[in-house]
Amino acid sequence: MVTAKVISIGDEILIGQIVNTNSAYINKQLYSNGIKVVKVVTIGDNEKDLLDELDDSMKNFDITLITGGLGPTHDDITKPILVKYFEDKLVLNEEILTYVREFFAKRNLEMPETNIEQAMVPANAEIIWNHNGTAPGIWIEKDNKVFAAMPGVPFEMKAMIEDDIIPKLKKKFSGRFDYVLKSKTLLTTGIGESLLFERIGDINSIIGKHSMAFLPSPLGVRLRIDIKADNLSEAEKETAIIEEKLRAKIGEYIYGENDDLLEDVAGRMLKERNLTLAAAESCTGGLLSGRITDIPGSSDYYIGGVCAYSNKIKTSVLGVSETTLENHGAVSENTAMEMASGIRLLFGSSIGISVTGIAGPGGGTEEKPVGLTYIGYSDDKKCFAVKWNFGDNRERNRIRTVQACLNLLRNEIKKK
Amino acid sequence: MVTAKVISIGDEILIGQIVNTNSAYINKQLYSNGIKVVKVVTIGDNEKDLLDELDDSMKNFDITLITGGLGPTHDDITKPILVKYFEDKLVLNEEILTYVREFFAKRNLEMPETNIEQAMVPANAEIIWNHNGTAPGIWIEKDNKVFAAMPGVPFEMKAMIEDDIIPKLKKKFSGRFDYVLKSKTLLTTGIGESLLFERIGDINSIIGKHSMAFLPSPLGVRLRIDIKADNLSEAEKETAIIEEKLRAKIGEYIYGENDDLLEDVAGRMLKERNLTLAAAESCTGGLLSGRITDIPGSSDYYIGGVCAYSNKIKTSVLGVSETTLENHGAVSENTAMEMASGIRLLFGSSIGISVTGIAGPGGGTEEKPVGLTYIGYSDDKKCFAVKWNFGDNRERNRIRTVQACLNLLRNEIKKK
Repeated sequence: MVTAKVISIGDEILIGQIVNTNSAYINKQLYSNGIKVVKVVTIGDNEKDLLDELDDSMKNFDITLITGGLGPTHDDITKPILVKYFEDKLVLNEEILTYVREFFAKRNLEMPETNIEQAMVPANAEIIWNHNGTAPGIWIEKDNKVFAAMPGVPFEMKAMIEDDIIPKLKKKFSGRFDYVLKSKTLLTTGIGESLLFERIGDINSIIGKHSMAFLPSPLGVRLRIDIKADNLSEAEKETAIIEEKLRAKIGEYIYGENDDLLEDVAGRMLKERNLTLAAAESCTGGLLSGRITDIPGSSDYYIGGVCAYSNKIKTSVLGVSETTLENHGAVSENTAMEMASGIRLLFGSSIGISVTGIAGPGGGTEEKPVGLTYIGYSDDKKCFAVKWNFGDNRERNRIRTVQACLNLLRNEIKKK
Repeated sequence: MVTAKVISIGDEILIGQIVNTNSAYINKQLYSNGIKVVKVVTIGDNEKDLLDELDDSMKNFDITLITGGLGPTHDDITKPILVKYFEDKLVLNEEILTYVREFFAKRNLEMPETNIEQAMVPANAEIIWNHNGTAPGIWIEKDNKVFAAMPGVPFEMKAMIEDDIIPKLKKKFSGRFDYVLKSKTLLTTGIGESLLFERIGDINSIIGKHSMAFLPSPLGVRLRIDIKADNLSEAEKETAIIEEKLRAKIGEYIYGENDDLLEDVAGRMLKERNLTLAAAESCTGGLLSGRITDIPGSSDYYIGGVCAYSNKIKTSVLGVSETTLENHGAVSENTAMEMASGIRLLFGSSIGISVTGIAGPGGGTEEKPVGLTYIGYSDDKKCFAVKWNFGDNRERNRIRTVQACLNLLRNEIKKK
């Protein structure tokens, strides 16, 4: 098994100022290419800690990928420490200097002199070209181990991983990939973790020698199946068998696989059926519309939406009747229904979806507590609303509400 | 210095399926309480790796906080391994069992039998009560070292950190806090990292013996000042001196401090001036409206918005003239201006803001490339639009566009 360690460098991670999304990305890329990440370590901008980690890597891992600390400012220490550990020295690379100057020129900017530092590279390392920024990556091999350092800026690092690091690693360790790792994730929503666990029943009889993990989030519980097999076709066969057994038990809750997004799943269903959609939002304030339009090409089926944050707009723009608001309140089944049909008529879409609720933290009463939400649906044949309560945390509440809207939409389109 | 290590357990992190947000949260809480997180480690659901990490912790750190692997499913291994390492045993805690049963009953759910497992706890450990879920936390002390294990579900873990772990750690190590760590972050937007670095000039003359870091993101570059001082008043004095010097050089780009959100800063400015806002969005599809309404109480100044994703809605709802669309196109200065004034009139707000652009990946031409964006502004005295290009990555493009809208808004309100 080819093993890897990922080192993230930066005090900003240790003091909790930023979340380490880089390692999640790297881990995923390595895993899907058959390389097992065994450990992820974050340390500070500190010489001794990085030297210790390099020592540990020389002893225990085939591959060590480092992100961060390659930038042009004073707190960037990765390059000098690699040079020290591998007994190398920094030299000026004219080609990189020219590239960096052009990088700024193209953007009509003067190159800050600080950036000359970017063109100083270890004499004995290979350079990984940075097409999206000014700090080059560094590739070092020693005793059949690989060390690669990349900038911490996510999109610069990602391009290096995809275009250079992965292909180079596959070539370097080609003789050692005598197995295939495969994982597949089934995405569920609308059911909690322990109930899902019970519905599935005896897990061992389903997964056999393979493994499965439950990953809850506000969007739903994901089920990940992990397969290790001798070859890809065997891995795919084993995956299909397990998936079939799971779908037989909990299929109704599964909306997608792996990186599928519910907004994309629902969008594709709309497109296939030549349907269009418009959304009227209150408590979610545009988040539903934002999720739908995250998908490239969503303009094929999404007409648009109204965020009716004030009640005035619910009546003046969406046509909710004042009587409904007075008798039932803004957060009610009736208002949700009138919002859904109102947006459908105003925007001329096949389907109207609406949401009105009390996102919190203020605005709750005993009768209508924070978290109370109505989701409305309207098409040419029917109009209804469903009641939910997603709890009193404003942020989670809004995320779960948007997910429930999209899932209701998916379930309704399926019937068409 | 009281030092800590954070261990995150879960194959889902190592294979890159989820991002480790838990450690970011924990690190921040510890740091702001004077405890230095020196290392963050992620390992899998694997006995040997966890035992090795526990050994390392006994040697090198005062505090070890563990998240994950405490759930009710088969892949949860933290509890049995802690029991093994500390030579303890699991016993049934009746009080927890009752609590777990009630937890389900309150939600009108039958308790899945799996959850009895949650009430099995190490005999010699202290229990940390979980008010938000069913897996209790575990607190172990040995040789003056602390080990605490918490569930991986973020909001369950967060409540334990705030209500129990931090207070207990402060008590346990009270004699050793003879220093104060303080960090302050200045948030900038609308200027790149290296240009900011140049504008600031000689950093050492500004920060002296303290340190400063540059943290770029699509929302802007954050500048973090890190202070270590003998006491809080000295730390605050030193921070104020550095901040004043920085503001003198780059004050115009600074929109807030620490965890400030630009949507909150702009919202408070609107509220103070009794102004109201409405938004008309095309390419951002509701994200701007979503960001504004992320803020509790935003209904005090935000009337609502329209997502005019199709051109039809730009004319029929927002009143953009067909001539404008024909002569200038949907992505143009004129359309942005008419959208801003249109939404202001339709929603009756003091200010209308609009955005129209080509988010990509499709839809670009040579004349109007992907990334081209116009942001429009309208109030009772003026109406204008500004042109931007935020590059060809759809996601970053949309995030940066929303940030630029909010910053334009902030700069305009400031003048009022």
